[in-house]
Amino acid sequence: MTPACFEHLPLYSELQEAARHIAQPHMHLRHLLEDPTRFDTFSLAACGLHYDFSRQRLTGKALSLLRTLAGARGVHNRFREMISGTPVNVTEKRAALHTAARSFSTAPLIVGGEDIMPRIRRVRAEMQSFSRKILNGDITGSTGKRFRHVVVIGIGGSYLGTAFISEALAALSDTGIRLHYLSNVDIHNLGDIAGKIDPETTLWVVISKSYTTTETMANAHQARTLMLEKGLSPARHFVTVTAKGSPGDVDGPGGGTDSLAAFHMFDFIGGRYSVTSAVGGVPLSLFLGWERFERILKGAEEMDRHAAAAPPEENLPLTAALISFWNNNLLGYPAQALIPYAAPLRKLAPHVQQLSMESNGKSVTAEGQHISFSTGYILFGEPGTNAQHSFFQLLHQGRPVPVEFIGVRTPLYSHFPTTTKGVSNHQELWANLISQPMALALGRENDDPARSFPGNRPSSTLVLESLTPENVGRLLSFYEAKTVYEAFLWGTNPFDQFGVELGKVLATDVRKEMAAKNRDPRHAPETLDPISRRYVEMLFRKDERGAP
Amino acid sequence: MTPACFEHLPLYSELQEAARHIAQPHMHLRHLLEDPTRFDTFSLAACGLHYDFSRQRLTGKALSLLRTLAGARGVHNRFREMISGTPVNVTEKRAALHTAARSFSTAPLIVGGEDIMPRIRRVRAEMQSFSRKILNGDITGSTGKRFRHVVVIGIGGSYLGTAFISEALAALSDTGIRLHYLSNVDIHNLGDIAGKIDPETTLWVVISKSYTTTETMANAHQARTLMLEKGLSPARHFVTVTAKGSPGDVDGPGGGTDSLAAFHMFDFIGGRYSVTSAVGGVPLSLFLGWERFERILKGAEEMDRHAAAAPPEENLPLTAALISFWNNNLLGYPAQALIPYAAPLRKLAPHVQQLSMESNGKSVTAEGQHISFSTGYILFGEPGTNAQHSFFQLLHQGRPVPVEFIGVRTPLYSHFPTTTKGVSNHQELWANLISQPMALALGRENDDPARSFPGNRPSSTLVLESLTPENVGRLLSFYEAKTVYEAFLWGTNPFDQFGVELGKVLATDVRKEMAAKNRDPRHAPETLDPISRRYVEMLFRKDERGAP
Repeated sequence: MTPACFEHLPLYSELQEAARHIAQPHMHLRHLLEDPTRFDTFSLAACGLHYDFSRQRLTGKALSLLRTLAGARGVHNRFREMISGTPVNVTEKRAALHTAARSFSTAPLIVGGEDIMPRIRRVRAEMQSFSRKILNGDITGSTGKRFRHVVVIGIGGSYLGTAFISEALAALSDTGIRLHYLSNVDIHNLGDIAGKIDPETTLWVVISKSYTTTETMANAHQARTLMLEKGLSPARHFVTVTAKGSPGDVDGPGGGTDSLAAFHMFDFIGGRYSVTSAVGGVPLSLFLGWERFERILKGAEEMDRHAAAAPPEENLPLTAALISFWNNNLLGYPAQALIPYAAPLRKLAPHVQQLSMESNGKSVTAEGQHISFSTGYILFGEPGTNAQHSFFQLLHQGRPVPVEFIGVRTPLYSHFPTTTKGVSNHQELWANLISQPMALALGRENDDPARSFPGNRPSSTLVLESLTPENVGRLLSFYEAKTVYEAFLWGTNPFDQFGVELGKVLATDVRKEMAAKNRDPRHAPETLDPISRRYVEMLFRKDERGAP
Repeated sequence: MTPACFEHLPLYSELQEAARHIAQPHMHLRHLLEDPTRFDTFSLAACGLHYDFSRQRLTGKALSLLRTLAGARGVHNRFREMISGTPVNVTEKRAALHTAARSFSTAPLIVGGEDIMPRIRRVRAEMQSFSRKILNGDITGSTGKRFRHVVVIGIGGSYLGTAFISEALAALSDTGIRLHYLSNVDIHNLGDIAGKIDPETTLWVVISKSYTTTETMANAHQARTLMLEKGLSPARHFVTVTAKGSPGDVDGPGGGTDSLAAFHMFDFIGGRYSVTSAVGGVPLSLFLGWERFERILKGAEEMDRHAAAAPPEENLPLTAALISFWNNNLLGYPAQALIPYAAPLRKLAPHVQQLSMESNGKSVTAEGQHISFSTGYILFGEPGTNAQHSFFQLLHQGRPVPVEFIGVRTPLYSHFPTTTKGVSNHQELWANLISQPMALALGRENDDPARSFPGNRPSSTLVLESLTPENVGRLLSFYEAKTVYEAFLWGTNPFDQFGVELGKVLATDVRKEMAAKNRDPRHAPETLDPISRRYVEMLFRKDERGAP
């Protein structure tokens, strides 16, 4: 095991020394960038991704120390243990095998004495067959019409990754299926979808590993009510993605049989890492067709292999994790902005926001020791150039935030070609993508302080060739591996999420009081604390005059 | 004028002392909340909003000091100067009169010797008349069909506020108009919209004050090309929202006449504050009808009056700004999360992200002096409960971030009523809204450190009665006033945005080289720095083998 606190390593003192060194005025990025070899020395390329970290506040010495730290922390071995089935999710005593979901290897993968690959292949074959039958009309809704709408009922990891990919590849969809997401328990979310679908041609995909997620159960109930009111049979319009034997499993003990099919999830794949399992597989293979979904898997698999096999000097996600560690722990930046210069990647930041902040927002080591250093950072982002016209003011002249820029070299859309100021819109997008990291790094002095730019603001730039299924799969896996590597550096467990438990416990108390009040309006919610009680009373108040 | 550096005020030392006091273990929120009067003492209500800051890490003493600071900084007077036309945008020597855009006062408002209200009323009357003619079919597209699609071409402040409001009130839209946003210069953004509209029934609204915004001009050109290729006349399908006399003004000097109408913007209303001007007025009055747009204005006007007139002890946006200041400058939190428990408010956080981070991401005072203290904070958010299943792990157990929760008491959607676990979906949403601030505040100890919650994490809760146009207008104005009050406390200018200039300058250099390369592929972009040059070469490379 890795030592619990890296801060006591002599290596860490050297890193702190390197951080003090880089803080000196002569180490401003505008000076570092005078080195003509900087771009080549601080760039890596693999699996179709080009990763340029030349505008990070890094020296060769610091990077070398970081790689030595990665070795000392054993993160590379830990990653290999992860993909080979070691129970790296130590608090929950489970393996973390999202990589197995996209493995096309024929080798067995033994977990707890069982080769799990046949189960994974079986679910994949079931999805492929189901997708084909839906798309060619062999399976229809209860009135015999082909399905045209798929509504994913799921929250958090049960939809964010799928939403990222379905938006990224929407231009490729040719299946005639429209995809919707019913994630929020807010009744307006259902209302919005109800206005867009035709219930007769709608398939609902209910996704919950335990089949007890409160929001998902409430929304599934709401959707069944809608279908019944329309005179449609839920058994012909619902499928589930859930753990074997859960209440939502068609073969499970009691209940759950009121659906067309169940696709199994496994306890060794956590929600935020689950898009390449049936969680993403069922909706994405309906929206994009099976062949494209398989191409996403193959892209992700390729990046998984790179993340596991490439030496630290060539390893993209490991290098990206080392840079996060450097920026977070040594340079003290509390946040990271993720800015894809590609409108179809508009849901990448919300996905990686969950992936990163839920995995790494921890304050204990995997072994349960309290830690004093910073771990997870705040991750946020919007597509560029939109973000330039929104919050980039703060990035240039206010609080510095390291940025990860993403560019796509070749656009998919090529109708109505025009040029403005001598360039195409895609070139204009790139002119901005090229300029922003440089403006952040160099800055520019001006006699007027209000027009001065301090510069020395770090960024990376990741370039993909185009938005193909393979490249989107590679990008997905890149961020998963980066997140996991960050955790292994910190010594935290990126696979549990106990932090969401307390809110659930308190919500159960509040819900019980509300249910009692629904039965008897005179019921006083006396088990609650005084403030929660006031809110319950506010919600149940009939008089709408006065505040609020 | 306010003193440039509040950090030298004796009052500031007292605030620092108050911050040290609150950091002690016995001042943990779980102890502060033992006071049964806490909710009433630390709540305000006005203009239909209930603002509860009982779960902020505040004492009555600290709040009183903050209010004294507000007085010492003269922020209340500054706000009144702003709405009465004083050039508070000192760097650009302009007034900041977004409040005038929604004023229904009959009193004159003199700016530079001119009463500006007649101009504002004239634009309002023009929008009302135009909206009526479009909606009743008096104005049609070039083939005589009624308009069914409106595409806003604008970026940053020219669409974010409108997107927030159109999403918030979408359920009320009954005009038969679908609204789309072409903001990003990414050609995929056009491709996405081109797949959704019927050009014959599409009205394009091009929004740019100067009518030179690069992205907007490139997209307008792209849209005109699309219409011409479809054999439609742009003059019958385009309107502009722009400054009088700009190249996009129909009455302007040259150009711009190739459109149905121009609605004027004024230099005393900045982009991120412009949604109640013609920027939001043209698209929103088409999407929602004029009457609803006017109700939004009236709600905003009511909150403006409150923000200007209410004493500090009763003033919602001023109190919210003081709490931001306290959390940012005294307690050291670098960020703020904005979590509306209302799916229709899904675009509130992106709007306030621009409003706050562009206004307050500054490092000089309004007078141009460098400042050492922190000003703007990172603002991000997603709707709850979605956010609970995404990044709340970090908020509960990782890096603390103050949260602003928003609740809506009465939902608009009431079809398919069901209950799950004894409560409706709306009640389930509220059970979570009630529980999360409490879980963050109280925390809970556990023998297992991985299951322990430190608590003491601050939040506010803002409750609206329902999503009416008036309430959405009030919410809009609340965040505008809060942002402006924050800046007045810091002594910064919330109305300029010089930080976006350097990137534009560098992009111009890159664009010129790209245009030259379009003319002659052999052109070498030698005026650029070595890294920018590499990216230009990467973009123009024909060979697609190898990386990236």
